[in-house]
Amino acid sequence: MTDDTPTLRLKKNEERRLKAGHEWIYANEVDTAHSPLKSLPAGTACVVEDSRGKALGRAFMSPNSLIAARLYSRDVKQEPSRSFFKKRIEQALALRETLYPQPGYRLVHGEADGLPGLVVDRYQDTLVMQAGTAGMEAHLDTVAAALDAVLSPANIVVKNEAGVRELEDLPLYTRALKGEVPESVELHENGGRFQAPLREGQKTGWFFDHRSARARMAPLAKGARVLDVFAYCGGWGVQAAMAGAAEVTGIDSSSLALEYMHRNAEMNGVAEQLHTLEGDATTAMKQLLADGEKFDLVILDPPAFIKRRKDFKSGLAGYHAINELAVRLVKPGGYLISASCSMHLPADKLLDVVRSSARHIDRSLQVIGFEGQGPDHPVHPAIPETAYLKSWFARLLFRF
Amino acid sequence: MTDDTPTLRLKKNEERRLKAGHEWIYANEVDTAHSPLKSLPAGTACVVEDSRGKALGRAFMSPNSLIAARLYSRDVKQEPSRSFFKKRIEQALALRETLYPQPGYRLVHGEADGLPGLVVDRYQDTLVMQAGTAGMEAHLDTVAAALDAVLSPANIVVKNEAGVRELEDLPLYTRALKGEVPESVELHENGGRFQAPLREGQKTGWFFDHRSARARMAPLAKGARVLDVFAYCGGWGVQAAMAGAAEVTGIDSSSLALEYMHRNAEMNGVAEQLHTLEGDATTAMKQLLADGEKFDLVILDPPAFIKRRKDFKSGLAGYHAINELAVRLVKPGGYLISASCSMHLPADKLLDVVRSSARHIDRSLQVIGFEGQGPDHPVHPAIPETAYLKSWFARLLFRF
Repeated sequence: MTDDTPTLRLKKNEERRLKAGHEWIYANEVDTAHSPLKSLPAGTACVVEDSRGKALGRAFMSPNSLIAARLYSRDVKQEPSRSFFKKRIEQALALRETLYPQPGYRLVHGEADGLPGLVVDRYQDTLVMQAGTAGMEAHLDTVAAALDAVLSPANIVVKNEAGVRELEDLPLYTRALKGEVPESVELHENGGRFQAPLREGQKTGWFFDHRSARARMAPLAKGARVLDVFAYCGGWGVQAAMAGAAEVTGIDSSSLALEYMHRNAEMNGVAEQLHTLEGDATTAMKQLLADGEKFDLVILDPPAFIKRRKDFKSGLAGYHAINELAVRLVKPGGYLISASCSMHLPADKLLDVVRSSARHIDRSLQVIGFEGQGPDHPVHPAIPETAYLKSWFARLLFRF
Repeated sequence: MTDDTPTLRLKKNEERRLKAGHEWIYANEVDTAHSPLKSLPAGTACVVEDSRGKALGRAFMSPNSLIAARLYSRDVKQEPSRSFFKKRIEQALALRETLYPQPGYRLVHGEADGLPGLVVDRYQDTLVMQAGTAGMEAHLDTVAAALDAVLSPANIVVKNEAGVRELEDLPLYTRALKGEVPESVELHENGGRFQAPLREGQKTGWFFDHRSARARMAPLAKGARVLDVFAYCGGWGVQAAMAGAAEVTGIDSSSLALEYMHRNAEMNGVAEQLHTLEGDATTAMKQLLADGEKFDLVILDPPAFIKRRKDFKSGLAGYHAINELAVRLVKPGGYLISASCSMHLPADKLLDVVRSSARHIDRSLQVIGFEGQGPDHPVHPAIPETAYLKSWFARLLFRF
């Protein structure tokens, strides 16, 4: 370890979680008498020691956050250099190249790829980075240089707009570190070609995380009348049409999203099957119910209703409300796909929501599938927070 | 309700589980003063009442089992007639025909299809039934008549060899209720054509339940050196070869299974990629380790090590032992698929086994997927026992 690297000392026994494979250090685990958090500026790489001074690895400091530091290497001498990032990126790339024939995927998924706080999505010639921590914010140029060395993309964009950044007092902005910020990006998924809005869209533009779930949907969509609630740019709905749906209705409150949904339907030759309803999902579902509409397949992919743990109760009520509406819109013998991207909502709780919704209308429920996030969003088995996405596939029948 | 239908009365408040959607009645929940279990012969259909005499539905009696009765209908007047079974079978068939282009699948999956205790697998023109309870045993002829009415198969076989039957003092036997008992059956799965031994094989011949998991494996197998442990008839290994594996080694202790594995490899044009090792899995894996062999992908699909709850500890040790060996056989950057069909081993416990095995050899683990049983094995959301299968997909890397 170099002499000038600052040190973060843990309290007694607080190294246990790290030893079990976790990468986070909470502020209350730090021996602040020995290493005052204020002495370690945000973003700094430091050496983490146990209470007896034994070095455990290297971490990035986030002294303004409850998660005060995140381990990026178990090698106590590892500098956060371009070659360090390059190696990690190459390792991440090897997985994605094994999985997908085309260059559209989440290339780096934070902790699970050994790069805590960093997300990189790849859209062909454009890479979009998101830094969620002060450590990654401080090293964005090095990361960009490493990405450039590995992939030589036309554009490297930083889209630092996520609310999580406010927890660390990081500013919200979007800019290009190489090339420009394209208005939209293009990608291939499950045999289709899609466009998504980079600058104005949600996250980095597309939700790659549902790719496997959308593939699982295909047989259920064939010949079906499909309702895609919270449709965004049509990831689900357009792929349902491509799988042979007779008719797809997409609901979204964003006119831009629906514009892209229509564009994506057109690009894949299924424009005629698509109808869209612009508006609030709950209002629209209630109207469909009032009109006596029924569907063979309803897809419910809402935004996170539980953003922080303290919102659990109100968020859960939100999931209940939309699932209650959704099951009523499913024909007996039809299917519901109910998703949640709330890290704070465990998968079994979401299933409870679906199950109680079905019971309220006296339906038997068959669970015919579950999907988490796709494999380009690997989960760190010691960090449950890296597993956030779940989709239940269910069939609704007249009560047995 | 007809006058001559016997009645099973529950103790006070013991109707709660049924009201929440479960279908089982445990012996200790029965008001035996009012309805002595011995007065209700095994297999009888009875009306289930709550403690105040309110009828809740119809159930089949298994007075010799801890699970004394299983609800087959909420309709208190529903006789277990041919038309009743026909309706349930048609409902089950509709799901499978939506899912699969060819007639090879689990057609009826017990409780989750509203037919507690009954399993029917379909292999083209041959249906194979398994009755796990006295109720289904007593109604096998009616079920066979209903199956015949719906599908007119050449053969309807009863393969009643499962150990679970001994819990209800049911005899073990195999016989044809229509046609004959073919030596082997044929099926299509994930684009391949396979044969499996009906009479001498495990279960009904093939394990349809891993179909989705095997599909998920495909990209990991491309160009890979693959080890398929507990290979049986090659469901995993042959499909790995079909996905482009450079070389597949299959281990199984049954020469019959490996004979079928070779036959299946040949039928799919991948015979040259296949090697097999006949013998005990642990011994064979230790030998491969001693020989310094390494694989890009190791598949571990053992039989149930935990058959009853009381075997949990020894069974868990068994899963630890084989996973410890398996991770050592994976090249850094390679993949492990670790499965368990033990109902008593929760999915998260199996992941703990994989995770601790990886930690012992100082590897970081990326979880890149999870699969339960395929959708032709639906799960009853109120009966956790109907969800028994889990497969973790993991990547093993040099420690971050």
